Amino acid sequence: MKIGIFGTGIVGQTIAEKVADLGHEVMIGTRNVEALLAKSNPDSYGRPPFKEWLNARSGIQVATLDETAASCTLLINAMHGMGTIQALGSIDPSHLSGKILLDIANPLDFSQGFPPTLAICNTDSLGEQIQRTFPELKVVKSLNTMNANLMVHPRAIDGDQTVFLSGNDSAAKETVKSLLNSFGWKEREMIDLGDISTARGTEQLLPIWVRIYAGKGTSLFNFRIVFG
Amino acid sequence: MKIGIFGTGIVGQTIAEKVADLGHEVMIGTRNVEALLAKSNPDSYGRPPFKEWLNARSGIQVATLDETAASCTLLINAMHGMGTIQALGSIDPSHLSGKILLDIANPLDFSQGFPPTLAICNTDSLGEQIQRTFPELKVVKSLNTMNANLMVHPRAIDGDQTVFLSGNDSAAKETVKSLLNSFGWKEREMIDLGDISTARGTEQLLPIWVRIYAGKGTSLFNFRIVFG
Repeated sequence: MKIGIFGTGIVGQTIAEKVADLGHEVMIGTRNVEALLAKSNPDSYGRPPFKEWLNARSGIQVATLDETAASCTLLINAMHGMGTIQALGSIDPSHLSGKILLDIANPLDFSQGFPPTLAICNTDSLGEQIQRTFPELKVVKSLNTMNANLMVHPRAIDGDQTVFLSGNDSAAKETVKSLLNSFGWKEREMIDLGDISTARGTEQLLPIWVRIYAGKGTSLFNFRIVFG
Repeated sequence: MKIGIFGTGIVGQTIAEKVADLGHEVMIGTRNVEALLAKSNPDSYGRPPFKEWLNARSGIQVATLDETAASCTLLINAMHGMGTIQALGSIDPSHLSGKILLDIANPLDFSQGFPPTLAICNTDSLGEQIQRTFPELKVVKSLNTMNANLMVHPRAIDGDQTVFLSGNDSAAKETVKSLLNSFGWKEREMIDLGDISTARGTEQLLPIWVRIYAGKGTSLFNFRIVFG
């Protein structure tokens, strides 16, 4: 399966590495390929420039968002939540038609510093906004409730955790479940919450996520739903 | 310890029963005592009228909100979240002075049906609104992330769960922790998130709580934070 990843930051890189390790063809999409590859300074987190990361990983391609959408069957949104709608708008709609978009982003607003707020209130969600704006996509929201490393290395924590799924298309959710399974997620750890409007629930987990992160000083934690 | 519980619905009743069983003096506060005791029909959930419940439980007193605040040292808010500020406003502020208010309510808005939304966005919380409006109180937000029965019978679920605490006053949080411990909560299950603004995190768990409840058909579940 050829997988396209929108977003070149640490989340996109982490997902791309795992997906490539699993043997999939991987294309990373970005708004401006030349500008990305011209960067020679560390990013704001002190990470090496993208080009250095890319050079160490043969087989991962970089292309525009439109080229990535056109040539991949499964797309993953790892861009900043607040920029997603505008960025996806640069893609020819025919290149999105019928494609699955796994949306792992959150509409975090850092404009007032840390902890960030969510720019979307609990009466809507980024997942729904994407689905409404691009009805030709099959949007599945998942993995957005945890650190990027844990998304693709869930066994970094002992014992069961929970990963949620939201989306209108059952077959698309099954495809995403298979991908999650290949990352190491167990079937019993997956909770399908229902249609894409249930993304309101998972996105609103971020306000407590950022506070547990701040209080405990680690991002190596996750939610688990325990039943009686 | 004399404990005052604001709210006469199923949440208030469930807490009152447990607190009375533990040997505390319990007073239930309501806006209009006469009207409450005059009710002779089942409530909207089909539960018997309050008076029947009360008659079966000797030792639990009923009084106005003001009388309850005046005579109790620990207060518990089990009213509808949306009516809390107005209801507390009927109490003589001197009767709230220095008292701990354990706020277990959520600002749920059922006006558009089920699932409810939260009337307060993630840039504020009911816990903070109460603390701002009644600065003479020491507000501790806790227990608002689960079903009422589980609040006071946590061992109804096997294995560890998580109960969160938010509040500006450390001593008040310690008092609440002792109460939680007497309900059956283990120290290791408690996460102190920090000041009362962290109630934004726990109140925003409700959008996913209501969807898990709807999807699984049970309220006997809880959040657990698992660490690596």
